[in-house]
Amino acid sequence: MRSPLLGEFLGTMVLILLGDGVVAGVLLKRSKAEGSGWLAITAGWCFAVLCGIFTAILCGSKAADINPAFVLAGAVQTGAWGTVVPYTLAEIAGAFAGAALVWLHYWPHWKITEDAEAKRGIFCTIPAIRNYFWNFFSEALATFVLVLSVGALNSRFAAPNGAAPGLSPYLVSCVVWGIGLSLGGTTGYAINPARDLGPRLAHSVLPIPGKGPSDWRYAPIPFLGPMFGGLLAGLLLKAILA
Amino acid sequence: MRSPLLGEFLGTMVLILLGDGVVAGVLLKRSKAEGSGWLAITAGWCFAVLCGIFTAILCGSKAADINPAFVLAGAVQTGAWGTVVPYTLAEIAGAFAGAALVWLHYWPHWKITEDAEAKRGIFCTIPAIRNYFWNFFSEALATFVLVLSVGALNSRFAAPNGAAPGLSPYLVSCVVWGIGLSLGGTTGYAINPARDLGPRLAHSVLPIPGKGPSDWRYAPIPFLGPMFGGLLAGLLLKAILA
Amino acid sequence: MRSPLLGEFLGTMVLILLGDGVVAGVLLKRSKAEGSGWLAITAGWCFAVLCGIFTAILCGSKAADINPAFVLAGAVQTGAWGTVVPYTLAEIAGAFAGAALVWLHYWPHWKITEDAEAKRGIFCTIPAIRNYFWNFFSEALATFVLVLSVGALNSRFAAPNGAAPGLSPYLVSCVVWGIGLSLGGTTGYAINPARDLGPRLAHSVLPIPGKGPSDWRYAPIPFLGPMFGGLLAGLLLKAILA
Amino acid sequence: MRSPLLGEFLGTMVLILLGDGVVAGVLLKRSKAEGSGWLAITAGWCFAVLCGIFTAILCGSKAADINPAFVLAGAVQTGAWGTVVPYTLAEIAGAFAGAALVWLHYWPHWKITEDAEAKRGIFCTIPAIRNYFWNFFSEALATFVLVLSVGALNSRFAAPNGAAPGLSPYLVSCVVWGIGLSLGGTTGYAINPARDLGPRLAHSVLPIPGKGPSDWRYAPIPFLGPMFGGLLAGLLLKAILA
Repeated sequence: MRSPLLGEFLGTMVLILLGDGVVAGVLLKRSKAEGSGWLAITAGWCFAVLCGIFTAILCGSKAADINPAFVLAGAVQTGAWGTVVPYTLAEIAGAFAGAALVWLHYWPHWKITEDAEAKRGIFCTIPAIRNYFWNFFSEALATFVLVLSVGALNSRFAAPNGAAPGLSPYLVSCVVWGIGLSLGGTTGYAINPARDLGPRLAHSVLPIPGKGPSDWRYAPIPFLGPMFGGLLAGLLLKAILA
Repeated sequence: MRSPLLGEFLGTMVLILLGDGVVAGVLLKRSKAEGSGWLAITAGWCFAVLCGIFTAILCGSKAADINPAFVLAGAVQTGAWGTVVPYTLAEIAGAFAGAALVWLHYWPHWKITEDAEAKRGIFCTIPAIRNYFWNFFSEALATFVLVLSVGALNSRFAAPNGAAPGLSPYLVSCVVWGIGLSLGGTTGYAINPARDLGPRLAHSVLPIPGKGPSDWRYAPIPFLGPMFGGLLAGLLLKAILA
Repeated sequence: MRSPLLGEFLGTMVLILLGDGVVAGVLLKRSKAEGSGWLAITAGWCFAVLCGIFTAILCGSKAADINPAFVLAGAVQTGAWGTVVPYTLAEIAGAFAGAALVWLHYWPHWKITEDAEAKRGIFCTIPAIRNYFWNFFSEALATFVLVLSVGALNSRFAAPNGAAPGLSPYLVSCVVWGIGLSLGGTTGYAINPARDLGPRLAHSVLPIPGKGPSDWRYAPIPFLGPMFGGLLAGLLLKAILA
Repeated sequence: MRSPLLGEFLGTMVLILLGDGVVAGVLLKRSKAEGSGWLAITAGWCFAVLCGIFTAILCGSKAADINPAFVLAGAVQTGAWGTVVPYTLAEIAGAFAGAALVWLHYWPHWKITEDAEAKRGIFCTIPAIRNYFWNFFSEALATFVLVLSVGALNSRFAAPNGAAPGLSPYLVSCVVWGIGLSLGGTTGYAINPARDLGPRLAHSVLPIPGKGPSDWRYAPIPFLGPMFGGLLAGLLLKAILA
């Protein structure tokens, strides 16, 4: 039953259930986490990554990417280009499923929350200041640092003062916490094309009370920006580790 | 002197002493932690799990479940059905004892705190919006993710990019922090039948000043929801790991 | 140059420099950490423990207790009663030195802070509600849980699902974070006789601008409470591990 | 392509991108992290250190100092004085590059933020209370504790109750979180000469809208203070570990 595609699907589902879940908890009315702020949101995404990675490994994905930008960066390094499209599709589908679970989990809270933009912000990213060029730059740079740092901590060159092997998923989640705190303030840090596109599809399709538009005009930025950043980091990692 | 039942009893006692303790610290008047918010509460439960697991291991429980939903999920996977009832009873008794210690620890604070619902909320869970179906769904889903993630990080399939063995209790506590942040906003995340029932019994029985009713009508939800979620996760883990 | 006494002295000095330091940062006027609240204070003490333990190990203390309650609990278990008085004195002296360094570090901030009680609260503990019996109970219970949890995570019985050996100092610091969040709200959690007595001596002796009295009447509680809790935990650990 | 100088350059670049990045996120108008406070800032610097260290290791720096105070302390211990100047220059250049990336990352936010001092505070440190002697003392003491603690956790004497080797970068980042919380309130904790000088140069040179002066009069303090503290810690480590 275990397979890489199932792992990427379920891992990304758990990632988005917990990741979009913390945003829902902070933004929806009468949630016990309401108003907990940016530190809670970034911490929630950190642990979402942790659970997503372990779920992906459990279900058969050795890479446990749960992020098309990592799939792309991996293909750049290993030449396994055939994985990029199927893994990306599995991750987008998993992200869609995770977002649908968030919708169900917080069911009674949607209709008492009036702010339509907050509801969209639970599913997909909204830039703090809309500027397509700089939003793209932000997403690309944040993803570049993410993929580079994760590549670094997983690198064979890391030993002996590098990370212990079993520590890797935890450290990856810490890196995501850090990137959220430090670089997330501009665009809400998709840093993962599936993380934005899958839940945006869910927002578009699901009958969420008072949901407003899904802002598809912005959708290319959090897809292409992370892909570009992942590509650059993959190239740099390949050059360094060659 | 060491035995699995003693381990489950004392481990759950420490879990609830620290877990209900952080809620008491945040909600009771004139506590130094008063008003510290949801991030503090979820962090407190994280470390409560850490201390509870180590206490349970110390006292003789190899599984260190301190949660009937894990006992049930374990029985589904291993067929050890005989443990479910005695372990669950030991955990409920331990949760009762832990809640009684919280009552003693914060002794001078109960009579100067007027809010009766806050006092009940220190002992047992209160849904943000009362809706038995969706409250059940929330508890089942959050427990499903918990048991699945913990099963994943403890899985033999996790190696070599999985967790180092000695890291497991810490990672479990991180998962609980994450679930609290991301999915706890709806029902206050019992995600553990003993965590709600034992302290609710304590709230009902102990002479807490100005305590109000114990809301027994809600009690089945945080018991059955986590049991159902644990059952489903156990079945999935069995299917994947078979 | 390395010796257990030097290790306990310098380790406790670092513990108090960082521990009292975070309280100073949160309470003193115009500090950049001013008003950061209980989560910051408890996090600061967590990392203070981490640095203190490593400093103690570096300088020659194998046990790295930096806390007389642990020295006492260790003596109960191993019979090494001869260490209790000298280690305790070294730790109190180290705590005094650490508190003096906090005084120097925040030098320009003392005279612009008017609240004399806040200044005392930087050095030593102040109960939220003064009640000698229940304050003693709080300190004893919190220290009991601390020593029990640390004994559990360091125990030989912990393997194979216990903590990895190299993880111990980090996990101890997490336990202290948890106890601060969950049980610290009542008395400010000395949970360490040296942590309160050494800095109280420093507060009493040093020429701190506008400092007010040192409240020596309360001083026995945060000394004897932790000692009693450590004694009980040592007895329980001995019974379990025998 | 890997080399120690490249590692120090890129590691320090990532350190400052994420470190100055979190300050930008908290201080700049309309950032999603705006107003998240000191806990978020210190957490962000913690993870910045983590990513910086792994990047430095990846790119060929075995020591992964990313801080001239550590280079100096290392030279004191090993006699490798020849590394001090080139490594320091590489780190300052990396810090400059990282600060420039922060400027680009938050591009649309600079012109809508009016506070010129906040903008300088994103790049370099500003003392809470300007007092050159005590500011120097604060920086020296905080760096002394940093270098001592890191030396302790990396020490060969730490085993067997010391840190696991692969845990070192994570623990170093925790130590930095702790020092920020406990000792950062006075000067904003440069504790790294390159961390202040490189970004101050960037602030001085880059065309940041409405930026105000770069306060070069204060610049020697966060350079010399950390150097002095690192020197003392190096001498103490040499004496202890000899």
